[in-house]
Amino acid sequence: MPGPSPDAPLPARPTLEAVAARAGVSRATASRVVNGGAGVRQPLVDQVRKAVEELGYVPNHAARTLVTRRNGAVAVIIDEPEARIFSDPFFSQHIRGISRELNAHDAQLVLLLVEGRGDFERVSRYLGGGHVDGVLAFSLHTDDELPAAIRRFRVPVVYGGRPGRPGAPTDAVPFVDCDNRGGAREAVRHLAGLGRRNIAHIAGPRDQTSALDRIDGYTDVLPDADPALLIDGDFTVEGGARAMAELLERRPDVDAVFVANDLMASGALRVLRERGRRVPQDVALVGFDDMESVAEATDPPLTTIRQDVVGMGRLMVRLLMERLEDGGAGPESVITPTRLVRRASA
Amino acid sequence: MPGPSPDAPLPARPTLEAVAARAGVSRATASRVVNGGAGVRQPLVDQVRKAVEELGYVPNHAARTLVTRRNGAVAVIIDEPEARIFSDPFFSQHIRGISRELNAHDAQLVLLLVEGRGDFERVSRYLGGGHVDGVLAFSLHTDDELPAAIRRFRVPVVYGGRPGRPGAPTDAVPFVDCDNRGGAREAVRHLAGLGRRNIAHIAGPRDQTSALDRIDGYTDVLPDADPALLIDGDFTVEGGARAMAELLERRPDVDAVFVANDLMASGALRVLRERGRRVPQDVALVGFDDMESVAEATDPPLTTIRQDVVGMGRLMVRLLMERLEDGGAGPESVITPTRLVRRASA
Repeated sequence: MPGPSPDAPLPARPTLEAVAARAGVSRATASRVVNGGAGVRQPLVDQVRKAVEELGYVPNHAARTLVTRRNGAVAVIIDEPEARIFSDPFFSQHIRGISRELNAHDAQLVLLLVEGRGDFERVSRYLGGGHVDGVLAFSLHTDDELPAAIRRFRVPVVYGGRPGRPGAPTDAVPFVDCDNRGGAREAVRHLAGLGRRNIAHIAGPRDQTSALDRIDGYTDVLPDADPALLIDGDFTVEGGARAMAELLERRPDVDAVFVANDLMASGALRVLRERGRRVPQDVALVGFDDMESVAEATDPPLTTIRQDVVGMGRLMVRLLMERLEDGGAGPESVITPTRLVRRASA
Repeated sequence: MPGPSPDAPLPARPTLEAVAARAGVSRATASRVVNGGAGVRQPLVDQVRKAVEELGYVPNHAARTLVTRRNGAVAVIIDEPEARIFSDPFFSQHIRGISRELNAHDAQLVLLLVEGRGDFERVSRYLGGGHVDGVLAFSLHTDDELPAAIRRFRVPVVYGGRPGRPGAPTDAVPFVDCDNRGGAREAVRHLAGLGRRNIAHIAGPRDQTSALDRIDGYTDVLPDADPALLIDGDFTVEGGARAMAELLERRPDVDAVFVANDLMASGALRVLRERGRRVPQDVALVGFDDMESVAEATDPPLTTIRQDVVGMGRLMVRLLMERLEDGGAGPESVITPTRLVRRASA
């Protein structure tokens, strides 16, 4: 049987081995009884069941699934309110990739919706109930309690985006992410290469590693930039509009902005148009994501850093299925490349 | 214990009563053993377990949940591909209402995504696994196999939209719907009241009862309309555009259209603008749904028939929770009213 996930100590609990020893049967027989008793002689069934009672053994459904994939189902958890999940195409594309790949593995996608952070206790209960074989979790925030719950219930997991629990060793948990920092550097270098002098950055929320890594990429290229040019956003259209308005107050001479996602860039574009700033002549813009429905629909269309969101969803499923099928080999993470897509905004 | 759903015969299977009789214990004791054995003396536990083995009794998890709500989770199944779920605001609003109300009941929303009709077998397996206490299903099509699967596994269910299995008595299954036929009549009467003579209808897909009922409302008011004025659509923006283009070919003198949903109406508007037809001067349009993000965003904004989609989602949850809590009283369905919302398009 594969071991528990390697990144946390686990409380002692009666093992199946202990049950087998007490019942005086082999581990395989004990396992068969715990899993329904088919093909085991009645006296042995009774002995094992007695040992189970006496030891207070609780079958670890989550660990069992590592071997059996018995539920044929994988949970997807997105740590965002439902309103954002349905309004940000990033999530629908991620889910599209996951859905197609799970389909190819004949596994049911079980999307667990949360309204707010208080709902994690309920989600944890569902995971603890052994209803799914594994979990794909994304859009985590650094103060999330979800990773701890997933560890506690020993449910195999692959994260979308590098989990950012402060102090946690990131090499202990498997994740799929894009090269956020490298992509950000390419965006800023592109703007600098156009001769822009006052290059700003509208950042994502600082409790997400994707936002932090993109900020790092910006400061890698412009270590001496005026701190007033770095302004916080929240990955929404409205947040991008607010940040752009404040940026124009702070630094009316801004001539380029690297915006941490396409949705915020579309909000920033609207504000620039309202204020009579021409894009790209007065202010050049580069986004991040390359969401077709956003980046190609804006006026002008967005130059942006493309990440393959559908492909990353498929990859998350493949990593999880490998863990389920080969019994939880060591965690493996994948960083996918990004690339600059040139359109009219820069 | 509540009875099975009343609308289908069920195969004979060993009952808990049979187990209790064979073990020589009361039904309550047999139930306690099957549910974990807490507080039952060991000899009785052994007797019951022996009877379970001998009879091949399988605990009916789905039926048990009627009493216990033990999973704390409710499945939502939408019979549409994931791409439509995330692009049509009808679904996100429906889910919004469901999510809020489930939250108020401390129940986890479990969204089961399907890619195509072939996936229902997999969804059925998940339902049969007893992982959820009940099901909310919507956007069914008349040839769906889902209702049969739900009946087979005896999972309590409330439908969104009247299920339309041909020949099935609709009073046997609880559903929440809006007054599709009455709303359609109001839309067409409004256009007739504006003095329009050639009033067309772009219909939804004919395998959904909402589309069929809206067609009925149209023909209620205009029983002698030229059949060429009734044209099929598919509830998508592109489908509405295609239908409008064909309608202009068939009847260039069309001066009003009742469109079966707002998304199709936005596609129809685009085609009318491209062909130089003014709305509402040349062609008046009325939609259906009153999706804010669509009806208020079009140019001109849409006159439409409002249905309270968020409220209908909440109502579905309340009906289901009543069934779970009072043990499955007879099915109750609710038809919610619609109303005309006047904007510039008619």
